[in-house]
Amino acid sequence: MALKAIRAGARNEAGIAAAKADLSARFGDRFQTGEAIRAQHAHTTTYIPAQLPDGVLFAESAGDVRAIVQIAARHKVPLIPFGTGSSLEGHINAPHGGISVDLSRMNKVLEVNAEDLDCRVEPGITREELNTYLRDTGLFFPIDPGANASIGGMASTRASGTNAVRYGTMKDNVLALTVVTADGREIRTAHRARKSSAGYDLTRLFVGAEGTLGIITSITLRLQGIPEVISGGVCPFPTIEDACNAVILTIQSGIPVARIELLDALQMKACNGYSGLSYQETPTLFVEFHGSPESVELQARQFGEIASEFGASDFLWTTNPEERARLWKARHNAYWAQKSLIPGAAILSTDVCVPISRLAECVAATQEDSAAHGLTAPIVGHAGDGNFHVGLLFDDKDPADVVRAEAFVERLNARALAMDGTCTGEHGIGQGKMPFLEAELGDALDLMRQIKHSLDPDNIFNPGKIFA
Amino acid sequence: MALKAIRAGARNEAGIAAAKADLSARFGDRFQTGEAIRAQHAHTTTYIPAQLPDGVLFAESAGDVRAIVQIAARHKVPLIPFGTGSSLEGHINAPHGGISVDLSRMNKVLEVNAEDLDCRVEPGITREELNTYLRDTGLFFPIDPGANASIGGMASTRASGTNAVRYGTMKDNVLALTVVTADGREIRTAHRARKSSAGYDLTRLFVGAEGTLGIITSITLRLQGIPEVISGGVCPFPTIEDACNAVILTIQSGIPVARIELLDALQMKACNGYSGLSYQETPTLFVEFHGSPESVELQARQFGEIASEFGASDFLWTTNPEERARLWKARHNAYWAQKSLIPGAAILSTDVCVPISRLAECVAATQEDSAAHGLTAPIVGHAGDGNFHVGLLFDDKDPADVVRAEAFVERLNARALAMDGTCTGEHGIGQGKMPFLEAELGDALDLMRQIKHSLDPDNIFNPGKIFA
Repeated sequence: MALKAIRAGARNEAGIAAAKADLSARFGDRFQTGEAIRAQHAHTTTYIPAQLPDGVLFAESAGDVRAIVQIAARHKVPLIPFGTGSSLEGHINAPHGGISVDLSRMNKVLEVNAEDLDCRVEPGITREELNTYLRDTGLFFPIDPGANASIGGMASTRASGTNAVRYGTMKDNVLALTVVTADGREIRTAHRARKSSAGYDLTRLFVGAEGTLGIITSITLRLQGIPEVISGGVCPFPTIEDACNAVILTIQSGIPVARIELLDALQMKACNGYSGLSYQETPTLFVEFHGSPESVELQARQFGEIASEFGASDFLWTTNPEERARLWKARHNAYWAQKSLIPGAAILSTDVCVPISRLAECVAATQEDSAAHGLTAPIVGHAGDGNFHVGLLFDDKDPADVVRAEAFVERLNARALAMDGTCTGEHGIGQGKMPFLEAELGDALDLMRQIKHSLDPDNIFNPGKIFA
Repeated sequence: MALKAIRAGARNEAGIAAAKADLSARFGDRFQTGEAIRAQHAHTTTYIPAQLPDGVLFAESAGDVRAIVQIAARHKVPLIPFGTGSSLEGHINAPHGGISVDLSRMNKVLEVNAEDLDCRVEPGITREELNTYLRDTGLFFPIDPGANASIGGMASTRASGTNAVRYGTMKDNVLALTVVTADGREIRTAHRARKSSAGYDLTRLFVGAEGTLGIITSITLRLQGIPEVISGGVCPFPTIEDACNAVILTIQSGIPVARIELLDALQMKACNGYSGLSYQETPTLFVEFHGSPESVELQARQFGEIASEFGASDFLWTTNPEERARLWKARHNAYWAQKSLIPGAAILSTDVCVPISRLAECVAATQEDSAAHGLTAPIVGHAGDGNFHVGLLFDDKDPADVVRAEAFVERLNARALAMDGTCTGEHGIGQGKMPFLEAELGDALDLMRQIKHSLDPDNIFNPGKIFA
């Protein structure tokens, strides 16, 4: 379904031409229509074929965004917000044409309130840029989805990543937003207080809306103190069940583990091959603990006891940064290691998330499925959240292989939904998961459509995403 | 403004009569219209005058709720969801008449998934009932707003309370909801996975919607392991600034304090008088730590060091449950201690929440304000969140005193908004805070109105709350 569902939609040719003329007149060479730049703005790490926008506008201020939205609204032309293009589900494609609004020049830190552990940034700043800026304050922004994504993009897909188990997802770490809405006004969803019961939670409505309800112009984020000590460890288990049971007990015991990542045996084999390592090729947990020296030591000891209960015999951990980087190298290179299994193959990264009690069962059934169908499908999971990614290798030039890949994804998503899970823990729906969202939430989708229609009646914001 | 703003609205008399007839026919004596029961369903701990519904329907199942909504929709009659009536801002009043939907009989625990640290409950169960039910599982539901509120009511006001600083608010602890919407369908907002990026965050939209978008029929909640050890402590400070600075540094240091409550000197005086205690009558922090014996000891030691940096000389703490109860008694009786300051007076509980860096300034300015106006206004704060309640004592029978009280509240809310705070950290808007919400969020209210109109076009769900 994923690839099959992606169709170009109807285009408002007259409106697009008029909007292009208005944007050129207003923004000069900050509005570009060359094919290379349009292709670049539809190019992502996704497996989904590109659908180019008709032009790219480089916004430099909230005022620019307001002007762009007013022009698009007047001509009923789609706007596709663009951060860094690291999305995985075709979020930045332009199935109905329209204008890519590149926000990468809006990358300023607007304020840091160190005492309150918060900051306000423009949407185009990347998480690495933000953390570089913050370094001297003793604070950091914890959410780490792997890619050096923009904060606006991360908010829009409700991103999370390796340390959500401790620090939560974007939903938990965005305090407030300013957003330009379909009528061209800039609204503010909340003040800077840590909590509020002031009406509908508009902040959480825009977080995860994938740019379909407005364009985010600033984001107020919660920050964390940089931990005094970070320790990292690697722990091999006899079976997937053992590894998952160790995760469950770790979480149940309230050990505030900062990261707890599961790599299956095939993924470990890929990592050994790619990075010249010699880990045991069995299901392995990569863990990280944050805190004071005493707290980190205590956490590691408690985790070690749990791990040995489930048959782990070789838990290595360290507080030395270089040593930790070495231990975690396999995890960091997981994607490239996957690619090395079949040189030249495309990768489709799945994203199911299930209640953790079902994680072992879901992973094991998925491994059996890929084995039964002769697929190469290593697994990396954010085990503490019940979220795992299959890096399915396939030949995107071979229609039969595409069909096999899609059938596998359909079975995987159905399996996760049957376990009360979701088809997407953190990547979002975009274009690729539309049919699965329908299966997951049924009638609730009608509410989403009603909200979309009420806030964006002409469907100018990122049409053709989340739902048809 | 608060009291002045409360007006009875237009009534759909014909519709109300027809709905009453339909409800009687369908539900027999589960639909009641006697004055005593109607008065009981408009009676709360609020300072806002009661506005009685036209009848009370005791719902016993989601099917009942669907039937009630269908009847109300047919006749365009307001429905006011009712849990325990512990709201503080007139949420259960019926300014346009209509039917109170009493959900207290829907108080079952539908499932407990101990391994996943979650459960699903009906909306009428209270938090104490839930925690009693959970006791043998080793799990508990942490949110504690003080009152023994219903979980549905707590979700609807985005409640939090004393331990939100560690465990978050209802926003963070509701995983999914089922809700009956205006067309009489029951929708499910999410599956049971810990995190999801599956479309708009409908869960967070209904959390805090104060019953204006639908009636919640079940709630999936995150649970926590009961801490191995709970330690409690009391710590007096020379000044409000010192106490607040100790809070800021505690939070910044990442000490995972479970509760950190601020009582000002007047509140401590009230507590001593009411409970026959002999605490120092200076600003005091009440703290609680959860964890393993080692972790709790470590937290208390770290907090103690911070407290002495800010002039605290007498930090008492204990892990003994009886001793802890004794130390915390003053905090637990704070409301009744406030009442004892002026026997017979009404209490208006304010609810501003500011960035914690502004907490000392906001509390100090508020104390000066009440002193300058001769008001009796003790303060209790959830200091770790920047949220504090003034228990303003006034004579609700004396119009001049009501005016003085309202003017104080207006100044307080304006002060908090100017500090980038909110008029409500946890009580919600209801009727009482409508004018302040307008001041706080401005144009963003239009989005709320658009969403309300799209999901409830006939305005049957709790009309006259949040916004006009």
